[in-house]
Amino acid sequence: MIIDCHGHYTTEPKDLHRFRREQTAAANASDKAAMPSRAALKMSDDEIKESIEHNQLKLQRERGTDLTIFSPRASGMGHHIGDESVSLEWSQICNDLIARVVSLYPKNFIGVCQLPQSPGVPPKNSIAELERCVKMGFVGCNLNPDPSGGYFNAPPMTDKWYYPFYEKMVELDVPCMIHVSGCCNPAQHTTGSYYLNADTMAVMQLILSDVFKDFPKLRFVIPHGGGAVPFHWGRYRGLAQEMKKPLLKDHLLNNVSFDTCVYHLPGIELMAKVIPVDNILFASEMLGAVKGVDPETGHNYDDTKRYVDKLSLSSSDKQKIFEGNARRVYPRLNSLLKKR
Amino acid sequence: MIIDCHGHYTTEPKDLHRFRREQTAAANASDKAAMPSRAALKMSDDEIKESIEHNQLKLQRERGTDLTIFSPRASGMGHHIGDESVSLEWSQICNDLIARVVSLYPKNFIGVCQLPQSPGVPPKNSIAELERCVKMGFVGCNLNPDPSGGYFNAPPMTDKWYYPFYEKMVELDVPCMIHVSGCCNPAQHTTGSYYLNADTMAVMQLILSDVFKDFPKLRFVIPHGGGAVPFHWGRYRGLAQEMKKPLLKDHLLNNVSFDTCVYHLPGIELMAKVIPVDNILFASEMLGAVKGVDPETGHNYDDTKRYVDKLSLSSSDKQKIFEGNARRVYPRLNSLLKKR
Repeated sequence: MIIDCHGHYTTEPKDLHRFRREQTAAANASDKAAMPSRAALKMSDDEIKESIEHNQLKLQRERGTDLTIFSPRASGMGHHIGDESVSLEWSQICNDLIARVVSLYPKNFIGVCQLPQSPGVPPKNSIAELERCVKMGFVGCNLNPDPSGGYFNAPPMTDKWYYPFYEKMVELDVPCMIHVSGCCNPAQHTTGSYYLNADTMAVMQLILSDVFKDFPKLRFVIPHGGGAVPFHWGRYRGLAQEMKKPLLKDHLLNNVSFDTCVYHLPGIELMAKVIPVDNILFASEMLGAVKGVDPETGHNYDDTKRYVDKLSLSSSDKQKIFEGNARRVYPRLNSLLKKR
Repeated sequence: MIIDCHGHYTTEPKDLHRFRREQTAAANASDKAAMPSRAALKMSDDEIKESIEHNQLKLQRERGTDLTIFSPRASGMGHHIGDESVSLEWSQICNDLIARVVSLYPKNFIGVCQLPQSPGVPPKNSIAELERCVKMGFVGCNLNPDPSGGYFNAPPMTDKWYYPFYEKMVELDVPCMIHVSGCCNPAQHTTGSYYLNADTMAVMQLILSDVFKDFPKLRFVIPHGGGAVPFHWGRYRGLAQEMKKPLLKDHLLNNVSFDTCVYHLPGIELMAKVIPVDNILFASEMLGAVKGVDPETGHNYDDTKRYVDKLSLSSSDKQKIFEGNARRVYPRLNSLLKKR
């Protein structure tokens, strides 16, 4: 089977956007009385079905993938909007919506949750929502290394600030994908630079630290092909060596994987050349990070399966990228699949 | 001949560091009376010669390169330290030191200047120092897109704020390398993430804008292989297409080049696959960004000439990367070389 480890619900029912607009306006005005009512949200099963069947499900069928590890729209998490209570309500709503998609299409989607992070608020405050989602059957979470939305002013992900959250991740045996949200900094573009920069920043934080000595079972997935990292793999190997760290395969790659959201064949080829096959997880980031058809290939930029298909790898190596590695990194997913 | 377009004076005389420590302390204490005296700086020609001959010059000879486009230590620019007057004095001292190196070794080095940028200060205030340096024979400048030192809170490089400076660059016919300085943000590592992130950020800013319609002759060099950009070239082509911009070769590549500071062969191979050969400038970033010998090759990580030598390109294409493109992008260098 083919597991896509990085999909977002970017075709949400309209009323969700209405709610968020009103919630944001009330948060910016600090007017708790104007907060919209969660109970008044109108999102029918039919609307959800239509939004999925004409989009993500259609593309799964067309492209030949089977299961998407599915989370709320990343750019919509907006951790910088409002305070912790705003972030919590919004996260719960978005996660509940993912749970509904999964319950409607249990063979095609499995949930990964958004966390109720907020600037300056300790990550441990996200533990309750992670636990709630895991109880609903979610298999991982998206952890934001920059709740400010573009200014990179949070402590490094290797700071002890994060440790209680990591303890819970290990206890629940769930990985996180490092994923920032929409950028509110005019210097950075959400999908064109901010996402990639956050990925690159996070990997270097991990290389600098010994966090995986403290948490040998902690697992991170770096999206968007790891940002700049595979392209600069020599730089990272050299910097680690200069800092007297172990080889990256021992220092980093027991705990870190990269997804294949790189939208051209030469990029994926480079990745397969320098990153061990055990550390590559198939993903497309569909729907919507990069739309459109590549005139050089005649296929969608984000149809990343075509690139992986073309790699000069054995079929067992490709099976790892498409399925095996995801089962290892997301053991709760593996358990669910075994029960089928 | 082989021109290295990206070298920094990272082996400066000791007294320069003493001066900067004292200047920084005085700036942080807002104690103008404690500012060290520029006239008291002790940096003899012999000391400069020794610092160059045992380092940059030795490596030029060993690696078979001829001329380095040389600028002050990038991580030392420290535009976030002190105010504009501190930045100006420091820039003048550093640039004068480059001029001395060039006057001692005119065949081996040519100058590129640091600018007296400071957070919140308009780039046009750097015009006078650029003019002064060009009069001394410098052929370009390093322009910092983030004088805050790590928080990316300056306006995009395509903002009108920069336009008077760009007008002067065009008038003087000098390019800039986009180059941030040392990072004071604990979330980012200077050479491991911050440099690359600034490169990636800048390229996306350029793609979003029409700055090259306003300045068809403006030329930017993006160091460190363009950050994440070549690895994600499909993403950038797709985003430009979605925004109804022209093809990147027309929208970006008449004005933007990438250097070869990518420290492993697979990275340089990818770059040569997706970036037209006319837009690649040979560079090593020596000395010091990544030290040490790569155990996988037995050669220094930053010996980038070896990677370019190994590319499957015609000798005329390699000549472009090693020399021809630099002569085109730095016309003042070309004029100087023609006079030899």
